[in-house]
Amino acid sequence: MVYVGVVGYGTIGKRIADAILKQDDMKLVGIAKTKPDYEAYIATSKGMNIYTIPNKIKLFEEKGIKVKGVIEDLVTKCDVIIDATPASIGMRNKDQYYLKYNTKVIFQGGEKAEVADVSFVAQANYEEAIGKRFIRVVSCNTTGISRIVAAFRDNGLEIDKIRVFIIRRGADPKESGKGPINDILLNPPTLPSHHAFDVKTVIPNIDILTMAIAVPETLMHLHMVYIMFKKPISREHVMDILYKTPRIITLRADMGFKSIAQVVEWARDIGRTRYDVPENIIFEESVTVQDKELFLFMAIHQESIVVPENIDAIRASLNMLPKWSSIRKTDASLGLVQEGKKYG
Amino acid sequence: MVYVGVVGYGTIGKRIADAILKQDDMKLVGIAKTKPDYEAYIATSKGMNIYTIPNKIKLFEEKGIKVKGVIEDLVTKCDVIIDATPASIGMRNKDQYYLKYNTKVIFQGGEKAEVADVSFVAQANYEEAIGKRFIRVVSCNTTGISRIVAAFRDNGLEIDKIRVFIIRRGADPKESGKGPINDILLNPPTLPSHHAFDVKTVIPNIDILTMAIAVPETLMHLHMVYIMFKKPISREHVMDILYKTPRIITLRADMGFKSIAQVVEWARDIGRTRYDVPENIIFEESVTVQDKELFLFMAIHQESIVVPENIDAIRASLNMLPKWSSIRKTDASLGLVQEGKKYG
Amino acid sequence: MVYVGVVGYGTIGKRIADAILKQDDMKLVGIAKTKPDYEAYIATSKGMNIYTIPNKIKLFEEKGIKVKGVIEDLVTKCDVIIDATPASIGMRNKDQYYLKYNTKVIFQGGEKAEVADVSFVAQANYEEAIGKRFIRVVSCNTTGISRIVAAFRDNGLEIDKIRVFIIRRGADPKESGKGPINDILLNPPTLPSHHAFDVKTVIPNIDILTMAIAVPETLMHLHMVYIMFKKPISREHVMDILYKTPRIITLRADMGFKSIAQVVEWARDIGRTRYDVPENIIFEESVTVQDKELFLFMAIHQESIVVPENIDAIRASLNMLPKWSSIRKTDASLGLVQEGKKYG
Amino acid sequence: MVYVGVVGYGTIGKRIADAILKQDDMKLVGIAKTKPDYEAYIATSKGMNIYTIPNKIKLFEEKGIKVKGVIEDLVTKCDVIIDATPASIGMRNKDQYYLKYNTKVIFQGGEKAEVADVSFVAQANYEEAIGKRFIRVVSCNTTGISRIVAAFRDNGLEIDKIRVFIIRRGADPKESGKGPINDILLNPPTLPSHHAFDVKTVIPNIDILTMAIAVPETLMHLHMVYIMFKKPISREHVMDILYKTPRIITLRADMGFKSIAQVVEWARDIGRTRYDVPENIIFEESVTVQDKELFLFMAIHQESIVVPENIDAIRASLNMLPKWSSIRKTDASLGLVQEGKKYG
Repeated sequence: MVYVGVVGYGTIGKRIADAILKQDDMKLVGIAKTKPDYEAYIATSKGMNIYTIPNKIKLFEEKGIKVKGVIEDLVTKCDVIIDATPASIGMRNKDQYYLKYNTKVIFQGGEKAEVADVSFVAQANYEEAIGKRFIRVVSCNTTGISRIVAAFRDNGLEIDKIRVFIIRRGADPKESGKGPINDILLNPPTLPSHHAFDVKTVIPNIDILTMAIAVPETLMHLHMVYIMFKKPISREHVMDILYKTPRIITLRADMGFKSIAQVVEWARDIGRTRYDVPENIIFEESVTVQDKELFLFMAIHQESIVVPENIDAIRASLNMLPKWSSIRKTDASLGLVQEGKKYG
Repeated sequence: MVYVGVVGYGTIGKRIADAILKQDDMKLVGIAKTKPDYEAYIATSKGMNIYTIPNKIKLFEEKGIKVKGVIEDLVTKCDVIIDATPASIGMRNKDQYYLKYNTKVIFQGGEKAEVADVSFVAQANYEEAIGKRFIRVVSCNTTGISRIVAAFRDNGLEIDKIRVFIIRRGADPKESGKGPINDILLNPPTLPSHHAFDVKTVIPNIDILTMAIAVPETLMHLHMVYIMFKKPISREHVMDILYKTPRIITLRADMGFKSIAQVVEWARDIGRTRYDVPENIIFEESVTVQDKELFLFMAIHQESIVVPENIDAIRASLNMLPKWSSIRKTDASLGLVQEGKKYG
Repeated sequence: MVYVGVVGYGTIGKRIADAILKQDDMKLVGIAKTKPDYEAYIATSKGMNIYTIPNKIKLFEEKGIKVKGVIEDLVTKCDVIIDATPASIGMRNKDQYYLKYNTKVIFQGGEKAEVADVSFVAQANYEEAIGKRFIRVVSCNTTGISRIVAAFRDNGLEIDKIRVFIIRRGADPKESGKGPINDILLNPPTLPSHHAFDVKTVIPNIDILTMAIAVPETLMHLHMVYIMFKKPISREHVMDILYKTPRIITLRADMGFKSIAQVVEWARDIGRTRYDVPENIIFEESVTVQDKELFLFMAIHQESIVVPENIDAIRASLNMLPKWSSIRKTDASLGLVQEGKKYG
Repeated sequence: MVYVGVVGYGTIGKRIADAILKQDDMKLVGIAKTKPDYEAYIATSKGMNIYTIPNKIKLFEEKGIKVKGVIEDLVTKCDVIIDATPASIGMRNKDQYYLKYNTKVIFQGGEKAEVADVSFVAQANYEEAIGKRFIRVVSCNTTGISRIVAAFRDNGLEIDKIRVFIIRRGADPKESGKGPINDILLNPPTLPSHHAFDVKTVIPNIDILTMAIAVPETLMHLHMVYIMFKKPISREHVMDILYKTPRIITLRADMGFKSIAQVVEWARDIGRTRYDVPENIIFEESVTVQDKELFLFMAIHQESIVVPENIDAIRASLNMLPKWSSIRKTDASLGLVQEGKKYG
């Protein structure tokens, strides 16, 4: 049994904490949080222990929320810490807490690659992370792209160039203050966006370029993927790879999937908690092959896609299971299935 | 055991079908649907029998979805039909199917009041619906308003005038084609909006006027409620009534509830299926009393608020249980609780 | 000829600067700005002199934009300064620059009332501002409400209570980073919103309460206005007052005006620069009278409504013209007319 | 002097009518419209004659709007008709009215290519349209793409492949009922989108593929353009071509242009009527060259980009002027300039 703590209990952290509760080889020691809000109450009502920073203890107590200790207490009690704090706080925590102890740490994609020994996507480079002390699970879009790149690589399709045109959700559902409202932001206005660099931290030597914009919706990112392979390919081969790769679901327009809201509606209808979709969603009819070229629409759920990666990263860091055993165990525990393949 | 069928399997119908599966005194005979899309697949995977109209059977079969029969078959097998078809189709179905048989029918608020013997909100007028053949559960905003009006009435606070300023969500999450995008619609441009008339079908003789607009969001309706009572009131009395009334939750800004997206985030976090919130949400700090006047913000989840009402309406139509027994049984089965009261 | 400078060249400042260029009794000495962006280029191309703060001069010059001097230079050259800087900067500027010199200053509604000798809406209290050194033009929603309150007051309709339910645009069109995207914000979650206090700085002794929310659109604010008069009123009388009051336009749903986007489309079609609508827009069919009660929908263009008020405030501060002469002169110079009255 | 009529007075038609009023070699005989709304009033107030269909005459008169005659009257009085009716009505009008007379007709991109003798973008194939009886100005996105393809072609850069990833605005500003609100629509879910076919109607033999989605904003379309040239290119050469090509403006992020809302704000600030931007907007810092590959962000204003094309199409149809003379005359009359080049 591995003891895990989650530092940072926002969009990503709270999902990872819930996922750890579902693992039979892990125990959630507690979560660290700085605001005594409804999320803190809910964590308590789920039986989680709450840790915070020293000068916030009183605030929690004033609202009737019990505090178990400070972050440093949590770090010392755990084999692994998941750091899911906002961008760049992870690096600060590393200096302030993690380097003092032996605890292994999983960082998130908001941190620079330098924070860790390896940048990680389970299907792409699980083995490289085995036994590493500091692992960085890359950000949502980078994770999604790396999964399909790894799937083609592992199935013998050599990529010449990949160009991904990314439409980012403007904000997460709970980020009420963030826009844009009636606009499209160049995000950023120069090329490439950080995703191209980030994919290379996981899969070096790939010829990738990405452009990204942000639009006024909160549900999922959408990728318009363009891949040029080294040799002509067939659509059948591509679909076969997509069908059989874990953490990839194909959904069909003729079943009603013509927008990301339909994907979310489906997740709600099948009872996914928080309507989470940790799988890459490929819109099947969009998959188009022309000689060496491949085009497709892919949706990525920014809130949940890295959750299974974090669970796998824990197992890799402590060498608990080999790659595919961990992936399969994680997917079964979280209820991930290749649902789409059942439709039609 | 009462046999129930659901005709119309959209936003409302699919929720009612799921709710019936949770009742120990009801059996879901089947659902009727006309499009063989992903919602049909999901219904099948939940073990529901699917009925349709004659000229659609082939379409379903082509997509591999089994059809159990036509709507008329469903009607004849049921004690009660929930008609959750789009506005005005219910009236057509009444003429075409329901009047031919003895089946009782629960219609929705999209139908005119004339379709039924009584317009219904459980807390407001359950007893009037007992034994009635045709009952109409009123629409979401009307249900929400009627609940608080009934709560004040039943606790001795006499309303002189109620004026409700309603901000409607522009579309449901899955209604991708509907707007507005960057606009506020007068909905309608003349006064009063239909809600004022509709509340009177449930609670006659109340002096009510409503104005409504529609805005670009999909989550919940928001009401700015203004009530003038006949005598001076105290905020403590109002809060006391709100605290103790079922299907009303109070949430506090100092716990982080400052927008409807935070309510949805909470529903996601506590594991509500589809993030449904069938309770009226009252934003506690907004409750303001000045002599005889009361002001408050109230959020209404358009997709789910009428679900418990439909379950209660079934029980009323067949005289299965007295008012509060039915309400309590429904709430327990659906996991409704006055969660907010636990916070702070 | 009065010499005027505009300090702060954002949404409001740039419009006031343009308006000053249209006055035959004023001369625009220059504008002060701290960012050398496209707005600075456009100001230059319109022939305006640019002033800035000392440590920004180099930045402007690097982009090829000529700087005429620093803010203090501008202040000393002007009879009146319009301070249109972001909230609370005006107060800082007062201490840093304005109190040193004799220049009169017009502040905006983002500043606290204490910054000035009088809070100002031309139609409501022009006379009080005559000769005052520091005048504060109140914010957009407050200006809009004060105009109609003054109109009823000046035409013999005594208001008992006014309750305004305000739907604020989430952000201005150019504020790309600001939300919300798919949400309604309680703005603020407690009552009343600042507007109630602010109207009283202009029209004391009125019984006003306001509630406000913010929604995902950028075009205009929408008010749901509810007034209780002391005596029964007639709709004809109300309409008569609205028709004849300057800076109020009535638009009709049966001409196509059923949303704020239609108002903007109209402003674009008639050639209004930047589609500005400095007039209160009343949706005619919504005007509803019940005994002593009045209900109506009113739209307020946040970007431009205070522009004519600033021009009038200049004239009041220097006692250049009596109230109605200034209002009429301003409206003629800016092309404001009661356009709506021509339709149907 | 050429006599022109505009049939269909919506988003496109009203802009073309205004543009014709600015031409010294054309006379606007009248416009045809079927709804007596505020747009009809504004047309009248601009001195335009209104024509309609027989059964609508009474409706116009009831609202006090003078009708000059029926559509057929307008057709017989004109040398050229601009048909700017909604998609597929143009074809119907062709059969019903235009084929009976000698009038030349300019259709819009909503019609199928077969409606006309030639599909038209001025810079791409003006000469082919000379003297043609039926010309079709292609739709906004197709026009934008054709302009840059023609610019590279005419300056010796041979395109191997062009792949355009199109983010469409969900609705025009005045289309209040249209969504999506919080969604991204695959538009369409299969590839390619119609734009690829449409560009080929103007520039055959080009290897083009397009993917398109629709998002919740109303301002402009955004293109992520990817071109593979036959030979290596230099960024300087590309920029040089973009700088010197009419109807293309380059705007810089370091001047504040980082989103489409900033482009609209600029158009408002420089006084463009209705904030129209008939030029292609290229975001300068996004222009990225890698060997033979070119990437860039381009914004297209859906409401106005085809306006200059329609004016040129009139001249081509009647052989009034050679290509570049017409383009230059149109641009001067409409105030189009390569503004961006002045910045920095």
